[in-house]
Amino acid sequence: MLYHVRMDVNIPLDIDKQKAEEIKATEKAYSQELQKQGKWRHLWRISGQYSNISIFDVENNEELHSILQGLPLYPFMNIEVMPLNRHPSSIRDDDS
Amino acid sequence: MLYHVRMDVNIPLDIDKQKAEEIKATEKAYSQELQKQGKWRHLWRISGQYSNISIFDVENNEELHSILQGLPLYPFMNIEVMPLNRHPSSIRDDDS
Amino acid sequence: MLYHVRMDVNIPLDIDKQKAEEIKATEKAYSQELQKQGKWRHLWRISGQYSNISIFDVENNEELHSILQGLPLYPFMNIEVMPLNRHPSSIRDDDS
Amino acid sequence: MLYHVRMDVNIPLDIDKQKAEEIKATEKAYSQELQKQGKWRHLWRISGQYSNISIFDVENNEELHSILQGLPLYPFMNIEVMPLNRHPSSIRDDDS
Amino acid sequence: MLYHVRMDVNIPLDIDKQKAEEIKATEKAYSQELQKQGKWRHLWRISGQYSNISIFDVENNEELHSILQGLPLYPFMNIEVMPLNRHPSSIRDDDS
Amino acid sequence: MLYHVRMDVNIPLDIDKQKAEEIKATEKAYSQELQKQGKWRHLWRISGQYSNISIFDVENNEELHSILQGLPLYPFMNIEVMPLNRHPSSIRDDDS
Amino acid sequence: MLYHVRMDVNIPLDIDKQKAEEIKATEKAYSQELQKQGKWRHLWRISGQYSNISIFDVENNEELHSILQGLPLYPFMNIEVMPLNRHPSSIRDDDS
Amino acid sequence: MLYHVRMDVNIPLDIDKQKAEEIKATEKAYSQELQKQGKWRHLWRISGQYSNISIFDVENNEELHSILQGLPLYPFMNIEVMPLNRHPSSIRDDDS
Amino acid sequence: MLYHVRMDVNIPLDIDKQKAEEIKATEKAYSQELQKQGKWRHLWRISGQYSNISIFDVENNEELHSILQGLPLYPFMNIEVMPLNRHPSSIRDDDS
Amino acid sequence: MLYHVRMDVNIPLDIDKQKAEEIKATEKAYSQELQKQGKWRHLWRISGQYSNISIFDVENNEELHSILQGLPLYPFMNIEVMPLNRHPSSIRDDDS
Repeated sequence: MLYHVRMDVNIPLDIDKQKAEEIKATEKAYSQELQKQGKWRHLWRISGQYSNISIFDVENNEELHSILQGLPLYPFMNIEVMPLNRHPSSIRDDDS
Repeated sequence: MLYHVRMDVNIPLDIDKQKAEEIKATEKAYSQELQKQGKWRHLWRISGQYSNISIFDVENNEELHSILQGLPLYPFMNIEVMPLNRHPSSIRDDDS
Repeated sequence: MLYHVRMDVNIPLDIDKQKAEEIKATEKAYSQELQKQGKWRHLWRISGQYSNISIFDVENNEELHSILQGLPLYPFMNIEVMPLNRHPSSIRDDDS
Repeated sequence: MLYHVRMDVNIPLDIDKQKAEEIKATEKAYSQELQKQGKWRHLWRISGQYSNISIFDVENNEELHSILQGLPLYPFMNIEVMPLNRHPSSIRDDDS
Repeated sequence: MLYHVRMDVNIPLDIDKQKAEEIKATEKAYSQELQKQGKWRHLWRISGQYSNISIFDVENNEELHSILQGLPLYPFMNIEVMPLNRHPSSIRDDDS
Repeated sequence: MLYHVRMDVNIPLDIDKQKAEEIKATEKAYSQELQKQGKWRHLWRISGQYSNISIFDVENNEELHSILQGLPLYPFMNIEVMPLNRHPSSIRDDDS
Repeated sequence: MLYHVRMDVNIPLDIDKQKAEEIKATEKAYSQELQKQGKWRHLWRISGQYSNISIFDVENNEELHSILQGLPLYPFMNIEVMPLNRHPSSIRDDDS
Repeated sequence: MLYHVRMDVNIPLDIDKQKAEEIKATEKAYSQELQKQGKWRHLWRISGQYSNISIFDVENNEELHSILQGLPLYPFMNIEVMPLNRHPSSIRDDDS
Repeated sequence: MLYHVRMDVNIPLDIDKQKAEEIKATEKAYSQELQKQGKWRHLWRISGQYSNISIFDVENNEELHSILQGLPLYPFMNIEVMPLNRHPSSIRDDDS
Repeated sequence: MLYHVRMDVNIPLDIDKQKAEEIKATEKAYSQELQKQGKWRHLWRISGQYSNISIFDVENNEELHSILQGLPLYPFMNIEVMPLNRHPSSIRDDDS
């Protein structure tokens, strides 16, 4: 099942720099593992923003929430979720 | 080059029903032709809305505008465009 | 799977009164059938508004969209959808 | 009498972790006691948010305010209240 | 029980003038009857607006909704409701 | 002359608790003195909020500003002011 | 007593042109009479908008509302009112 | 040339009190000097707010920006600028 | 003197098509004449929108308002104006 | 390819002053180098704001993001990006 998720990241300016780098590295590994599993289907950067647009393909709302809550950057994020459907005009097999 | 586009459709309630069906059929054909060409990369319905989220992969801003302006439903749409970048954590070949 | 849906109804002032009553009657029957099936789990009126708060319990996003799009009042509604999860502090069996 | 309440939680990032855990544990006990009493009728998590949707069934505005003000997480919450009515199309005994 | 209600009136410009005057006269009688009963506790005009601020003192949400839905100008109004409590610093007997 | 005032209070989480209690006590005395004088005509709590709705009956804008600026909690408040008029449908002597 | 008023004018596109001109002429005469009386203290156009910023100097809220409601363009206006005070740093005699 | 400027002041709660008083005194002198020169044409307090409405009469955008940027309270202000025109219905010599 | 202007065009769906084309042609000629004079300094389309971003270089607010009000599409436009200054970091001769 | 970018700068009040000056100097050099290269096509200050409007002419979204992310003031900025097109009525060679 597909979800459209926008994540806006706001890391406080006074955070310890090394700690911030560690969190970002953990975030990257966490994201890439979920991409390999096919659960984090797409991931794009919004130009000029510390924000991304992601498409998740998960079993249900529970799995989505569990993944988002587990994001290492979760405490610094504002997250918006929209459930998606296959569009009746879509011709792509992998858009549903 | 990738763009994130949200289209919200508002067809007036008093429009001629047959005309509306014709426009929708033309829209579908227009969209599917662009999907086949790879320019309209993804297309999803937002649950509960007469709205879609689309990812376009086009040469530049000019081509994007030309495609959007040519949508048969364009006069009835509210459109929002966000340029996208490959995300540094993405592992997918087709997300850029 | 649970969804929180808010529906705001705006029937045009100049609509034919009898037609409006027919649509409302069909809407009521449609809603009650879905309530009997357990898919439209809760339904409340917001005080002072021609609006309701509904909780749906359906298989997935597809079924939700199909139900909402089938609402007889759908052309006159503004709809907002939020996916819900069981809350870790909930003690009710029927809140998930 | 029914109320729809949305609570968004914002615990400051620099709070003492143990203190935060204690407050959350107290919050959970407080919420579950009110659920047992039937006053906190429903409780759901909004997917991807540190937020909940709750339905309260209390005597009056005074009791609602007293319960909300007593929430251990109250100082960290943004709260929105909407009074609810039984919906004329509802068939459920427990939606009023 | 007290409620704070704001009503903004938007009567369409092309409405029949005599019909509009009739509705306004009915509205006035309806409002004054409820004021006499003590249910419509206060009623003020917002300066420069076709809007009012009202305080209702009714049994419960059901009675409030029933009164508001019965307003002759209801189809032309936007209504916002906020439940009120006695304020701990109030010294007035009639503010609760 | 009447004014509708909404006050939202945001006391910082890290304020000294005793100091906060002192300010609140001074605020209460200040408010009650103005209520006794008839200048602070009504005072209600908004359910679930650290906010109040107040009706002031003062000589003019100057007196209103002077009273509001003198509130002990003024530095922690967001304040919105709307001038009010007697409503042509009001039957109450004390709503003007 | 001073009030800051912003008026945004929206005359429907399909209004009879001669009727519109008549209303505008009446509006101008109405405004200039009030300016002569000193009640409509200042009147400016906002660049690029069919909107004005006005300063009124009237007895009280009642007189302000009466003047605004009497504007020939009132049915086509959106109006915002803010009460003003003499500023403690002002050196002008006529800013209070 | 005329500009409508709204200034909202937010001085942090933890600022040194004496320093704050010095800045306010400097601000007052700065403002009064510009009023004497005729550049800061009008200055009013918005009732209940730490905000003012000002009318500036300066040579051009450059002079306006230079004056605003020079405000001693500038680092603590939110500023909104709207260019103004003489209104065709104005009869006052000094409103242009 | 420079101004940043955003124009959003909303031509009603039921307008006579030939009339619409005539207005657009007049608009184009009007715009190009002002561009030739150097008053309409820049003109860009916002991708996906029936909107433009324009930079005007005119004598003062009066000339700006006069030009905007004279736009053939003015009755169908929503217009936002921001005065601009030369930026202290700009190296271009023609950005002031 | 052209982009319209608005940058709003919010440097924290308690930042070390010398450090702030250094960042601003680096920012200026960075901006002027990009202006010389023709990539930062226009740069204006918004009157009364610590904000600018910029027009970028770059290869694609990637180059735009890379430039914006490299801004020395980037951690203190809120940035909005809109892709631009040549306007069909433009007569300027350098507006595309």
